[in-house]
Amino acid sequence: MNEPTIKEIRGAAERIRSLVHRTPVLTCSALNRMCEAEIFFKCENFQKVGAFKIRGATNTVFSLEDEDAAQGIATHSSGNHAAAVALAAHWRGTKAYVVMPDNSPAVKKAAVAGYGAEITFCKPTLAAREERLARVIERTGAAFVHPYNDYRVIAGQGTAALELCEEIPDLDIVMTPVGGGGLLSGTALAISEVSPQTDVIGAEPEKADDAYRSMEAGRIIPSVNPDTIADGLLTSLGDLTFPIIKRLVREIVTVSEEEIVRAMRHIWERMKIIVEPSAAVPLGAVLGRRSAFSAKRIGIILSGGNVDLERLPWMD
Amino acid sequence: MNEPTIKEIRGAAERIRSLVHRTPVLTCSALNRMCEAEIFFKCENFQKVGAFKIRGATNTVFSLEDEDAAQGIATHSSGNHAAAVALAAHWRGTKAYVVMPDNSPAVKKAAVAGYGAEITFCKPTLAAREERLARVIERTGAAFVHPYNDYRVIAGQGTAALELCEEIPDLDIVMTPVGGGGLLSGTALAISEVSPQTDVIGAEPEKADDAYRSMEAGRIIPSVNPDTIADGLLTSLGDLTFPIIKRLVREIVTVSEEEIVRAMRHIWERMKIIVEPSAAVPLGAVLGRRSAFSAKRIGIILSGGNVDLERLPWMD
Repeated sequence: MNEPTIKEIRGAAERIRSLVHRTPVLTCSALNRMCEAEIFFKCENFQKVGAFKIRGATNTVFSLEDEDAAQGIATHSSGNHAAAVALAAHWRGTKAYVVMPDNSPAVKKAAVAGYGAEITFCKPTLAAREERLARVIERTGAAFVHPYNDYRVIAGQGTAALELCEEIPDLDIVMTPVGGGGLLSGTALAISEVSPQTDVIGAEPEKADDAYRSMEAGRIIPSVNPDTIADGLLTSLGDLTFPIIKRLVREIVTVSEEEIVRAMRHIWERMKIIVEPSAAVPLGAVLGRRSAFSAKRIGIILSGGNVDLERLPWMD
Repeated sequence: MNEPTIKEIRGAAERIRSLVHRTPVLTCSALNRMCEAEIFFKCENFQKVGAFKIRGATNTVFSLEDEDAAQGIATHSSGNHAAAVALAAHWRGTKAYVVMPDNSPAVKKAAVAGYGAEITFCKPTLAAREERLARVIERTGAAFVHPYNDYRVIAGQGTAALELCEEIPDLDIVMTPVGGGGLLSGTALAISEVSPQTDVIGAEPEKADDAYRSMEAGRIIPSVNPDTIADGLLTSLGDLTFPIIKRLVREIVTVSEEEIVRAMRHIWERMKIIVEPSAAVPLGAVLGRRSAFSAKRIGIILSGGNVDLERLPWMD
């Protein structure tokens, strides 16, 4: 399969349309004043399963041939992709097998179980995930849906940016958080076709800055034991996402833990919506470099809203 | 001044239109399944100052003659009305004087101060509020805007229900929380004219159940030392709100503290939006009496979203 073009992204949009939400784009005058910019938030926290991940998972699961889908769907994920695969498999009428790190937030574990998936817990390392997943697939014959390093997933994630540009034209910048790079690469592919004058920027925790370092080096440099409150961004770029990001993304901006928490709290307090730490990273980048973003029209994809409400980051 | 009719409510809608938000109406399939009903949430938590209170305050402040407005605006309030008066006065270009109970949530105190109002703190009793307010008015000559017992305020609060009915016709029931009764009486007046087949129901904390007891008794029975997590509902009905409620509201349903907290948490977790405890009381009523609301189309006004994010009620 080749790198997705706008044709595959539009195809994904068509394929998932009746299943996922077309999420609203919200603005907030208080945050605009604070940033001295005009920000348009694409609210994927309101999406099915509470995150954009349902887009890529649904596109992939519904791209499978019937006989492949019938064996079930398998994946590993720190949370939102797991819930997305579980729900997409449920929609397709097949079984989901999910390998999750045992330190995933309780709310994400509960969501995956709630959609009827079979969960296998593992240590929170990529190696442990992959080893467990291989065993699950050997046992079940399930089709693997990678959380990001899959062109069908990338095309699906690109549909959020497509909707954003349809609703808000003439954006100067579109920003997304970056973990494994599925959302960022899909966004970059979509934007490069439908709004080529718009810059795409990735925002990444300083404490999981593999994308920043990979862009500097010109080759993939995986994170080693990343540790950030943005639990959706612990993964490193893949060999399918990195080339797209390298080619089409203007810049990766890194954000401190303190900036992430502050941005998250501003969104909660000012917009009265719940976003998870990962989703707040782009606003953290804007607030941390105000002069670079001043007076710009900026689209931000709020990637998800699944937070353990028992322990909020500003309470420690 | 006479009891507001639909003419005054439509006049209020016109007067405040350019200043306040037309808030969205959201639905949530997970909550619909949980309630076995169809619920339409009018999101006044997204309103200016984070609560419906800006509607009544703005209508009243902009109804004043220039020479009255020029002396400033005074009020007492546990929080959201205070912020609303402060902002409405700012819009009108005059000074706000606000008497607040010293146990008001920090976030509400900060909001009032942020809009430039002069705050006087008092003990959290109605007597203390009124005594302090009288002194402020004597000193300044400011116009008093009561938090609920004022026909201009009642007409303003009724505009939320007007918008709800324009967007979602054929509701079986509209529910609001009830404290002093401004929102409930304004809603009842609006609904009785634009959707007379719709029942209006008030939802009230068991631990501040003056409206329930007043309806039973047929006369105002004020709360004595009410103590509920729903800090916006500590006030008792007034002599202007009660007759309207008695005539036009079908029923007051009381809700336990535990049910309020559970409903609030469901809204946070499922809808990914932030509502304050008072706003969750109607959903608590529905969840607590599922059979009575089963299969109904229910409009709920989510009254506000101002919560102290340091201490969430499920954390104690």
